[in-house]
Amino acid sequence: MTPHTRACILSTGDELITGQLQDTNMRWLASELTIMGISVVQCATVPDDLETLTATMLRLTTCAPLLIVSGGLGPTEGDLTRHALAEAMSDQLVTDDAAQRWLDEFLRSRGRNWNALQARQTLRPSRARMLPNAVGTAPGLHGVVGEGVLGCDVFCLPGPPNELSAMWRASVLPALRPPADQTVRTRLLHVIGIGEADLASKLGPMMARTRLPLIGVTASQGVLTLRLRYAGPGSRLDADAAIDADVAALSAQLGDNILGDGSLSTSELMIAALGRAGKTLAVAESCTGGLLGAMLTQVPGSSTSFSGGLIVYSNGLKTALAGVPSELIAEHGAVSSQVAAALASGARERTAASYALAITGIAGPDGGSVAKPVGTVYIGLAGGATEPEVRHFRFSGTREDVRARAAGSALGMLHFELRQTNPRPKLLWQQGDAQTAAC
Amino acid sequence: MTPHTRACILSTGDELITGQLQDTNMRWLASELTIMGISVVQCATVPDDLETLTATMLRLTTCAPLLIVSGGLGPTEGDLTRHALAEAMSDQLVTDDAAQRWLDEFLRSRGRNWNALQARQTLRPSRARMLPNAVGTAPGLHGVVGEGVLGCDVFCLPGPPNELSAMWRASVLPALRPPADQTVRTRLLHVIGIGEADLASKLGPMMARTRLPLIGVTASQGVLTLRLRYAGPGSRLDADAAIDADVAALSAQLGDNILGDGSLSTSELMIAALGRAGKTLAVAESCTGGLLGAMLTQVPGSSTSFSGGLIVYSNGLKTALAGVPSELIAEHGAVSSQVAAALASGARERTAASYALAITGIAGPDGGSVAKPVGTVYIGLAGGATEPEVRHFRFSGTREDVRARAAGSALGMLHFELRQTNPRPKLLWQQGDAQTAAC
Repeated sequence: MTPHTRACILSTGDELITGQLQDTNMRWLASELTIMGISVVQCATVPDDLETLTATMLRLTTCAPLLIVSGGLGPTEGDLTRHALAEAMSDQLVTDDAAQRWLDEFLRSRGRNWNALQARQTLRPSRARMLPNAVGTAPGLHGVVGEGVLGCDVFCLPGPPNELSAMWRASVLPALRPPADQTVRTRLLHVIGIGEADLASKLGPMMARTRLPLIGVTASQGVLTLRLRYAGPGSRLDADAAIDADVAALSAQLGDNILGDGSLSTSELMIAALGRAGKTLAVAESCTGGLLGAMLTQVPGSSTSFSGGLIVYSNGLKTALAGVPSELIAEHGAVSSQVAAALASGARERTAASYALAITGIAGPDGGSVAKPVGTVYIGLAGGATEPEVRHFRFSGTREDVRARAAGSALGMLHFELRQTNPRPKLLWQQGDAQTAAC
Repeated sequence: MTPHTRACILSTGDELITGQLQDTNMRWLASELTIMGISVVQCATVPDDLETLTATMLRLTTCAPLLIVSGGLGPTEGDLTRHALAEAMSDQLVTDDAAQRWLDEFLRSRGRNWNALQARQTLRPSRARMLPNAVGTAPGLHGVVGEGVLGCDVFCLPGPPNELSAMWRASVLPALRPPADQTVRTRLLHVIGIGEADLASKLGPMMARTRLPLIGVTASQGVLTLRLRYAGPGSRLDADAAIDADVAALSAQLGDNILGDGSLSTSELMIAALGRAGKTLAVAESCTGGLLGAMLTQVPGSSTSFSGGLIVYSNGLKTALAGVPSELIAEHGAVSSQVAAALASGARERTAASYALAITGIAGPDGGSVAKPVGTVYIGLAGGATEPEVRHFRFSGTREDVRARAAGSALGMLHFELRQTNPRPKLLWQQGDAQTAAC
């Protein structure tokens, strides 16, 4: 039988195509297939419309030997996946006796009444088989469209993610035939202190589209994520060795610019790095208002390295909570290198943490001036050898972007401090060099 | 010119098709189009492969007079959208002089170097126009595939969601031609202190699926959002009048359970309510670690009502920063009604705010016990008439869910305090009645 080298994914649902609901199934299925070495070549989303659903299903069965459909198996008139599968198979719907008995029993055991609409859920194309649903009332379906080497296995799964994943594990996985001659392995690496274009030019031929492993890059809030993907012949060990060799080459090229394992968040990496160094961190947040603390405490077990800190949104609290002299604020402004340094020192003293990161800036959309436009942010780090270190940024984007980029850049500063990287690489959006300021 | 009655959406990216990244653009675009009365008829996701991208783009241009493409506009070799558009238009790529000058200036103003790869971002099909990017370096593209009534407007937008939405508002919206014969108006209302099933039974026939306006409900983190959607004949005034009448009926039915305008966030509503009452708020956050502060300060202008507060993740800082007696923590545990009350009072004193909200709990996945399982959270509110008020919650879900629900519930408590609602409605997941505790 033809191996499942390639696959398509089809999602159906008015709630998806109108944007009412985020489709998480597509991503989940794509990830599952990719990990097994099955390349996803196309995904489609269509409304609950029989003609469109049938046509799209037929089209996708010609693109790959495997098609996973999600949604449209419920009991309502808008649930049309079984009808579309019957049309695609040039088949007719029949009642499945076993499914009918099972549904009777399922409803009775839960004290629920049989409802005429539910009879729909016992229908299947005569040449298809039903896949049991361990979680809900909608059975799945497996049928074949086309014949011989042109045949495509179509698995139809229910839309609710918990039902879909349970049926995937119980009934689809055992029936898949991943390519025996291809191994797929993926690894991710986070990189900071370098721009996307600079990175691409530094890596040069390593980023060629025909290379194995294939290296791709995505950018998000000042952190670049490199994706190394091996999809080719050889064993899993060969694939891992090829990726290991690339990671070693990247490490040699990029050094401390590598933040760490890209399957973890920046916060997770920094909490782990603090733990390894036996250090603790506190924060003093003005324009981010708690965002950096929220990111750090999203990491389970972060309490070993993160103790807390101060939200000093108003100038009054910068003085009352962090001990920043009101004269300093009056002289330099709350958004200044001097106040960032004083906030970092003040927070470190009051919390007795090894390091303190302080963020003060203008997140916008209002509050900017010619000298300090929206996006101007000063980040202070207290606790290093020469302290405190302050960097001046000019972030672009919305209020949300400026805040997220500020929090991410603060963690970038901590990364280079913990690595004792010298000279310190500039971070994206940084203006001028880092300063050290006594206060 | 043909009105944009229907539209397709195309997402490109290896990171999407391999399941590495959740595609949130598709949903966002689908929702924007639907709200305008433009029906989305098909969505597709393809890898960064020129042949597939071009073929899919061409196919979708025959399905609808409007196609929105997201992704593939970066500077790397894997960014192929502009090449695909050129092929679909049977056109050639040329350098756009204005884009080149703009990119030069953008890079210079940020102290970044010009890089040969970035030249890719100044290319466009000769008959297409560039759409400026206010947030990043990748300009968008607008071209027409096909001619006359068969012509399809193709808008190519960058993949990062913040760049995509900014470009959508600035350059795509003004160029759209939504159908003139149908009026679509939508309004949203946030509701708290009532469950989804209770709400549905209270509203009864108002929620019928055939009704105009159609009323739908979605639940998120303890807040229900009612969506009133009028899609039918009549003028905009008629549609608004029908929605106004429904809003009045809902207000009469639901009273203080209505939190406010659902197009605003809970934080925006509470910052506005504090402003109207002339009150200020501070926070003391343990398990949320700054999340509530981050939500509140995401609102532009929040500084008039929110001053800041304390992140007291460790027990040491609960004592050092908020003045909670260590004996109180030893006796009742850090996650207790008593400590929540003491944190709220301590934060209020130290910040001189009108109100303080304090959150202490077990967000998980570890740290739970039989008496206080994961999801147990106490929220204290100081500054009311009898103070402080403490509510006990038992949230379900992941660590992220527990934290988001805790922060949202804290704002819910503030809402009923500001409205002086008596008796106070129970919030979702609340255990027992609210207590007041002296400390």
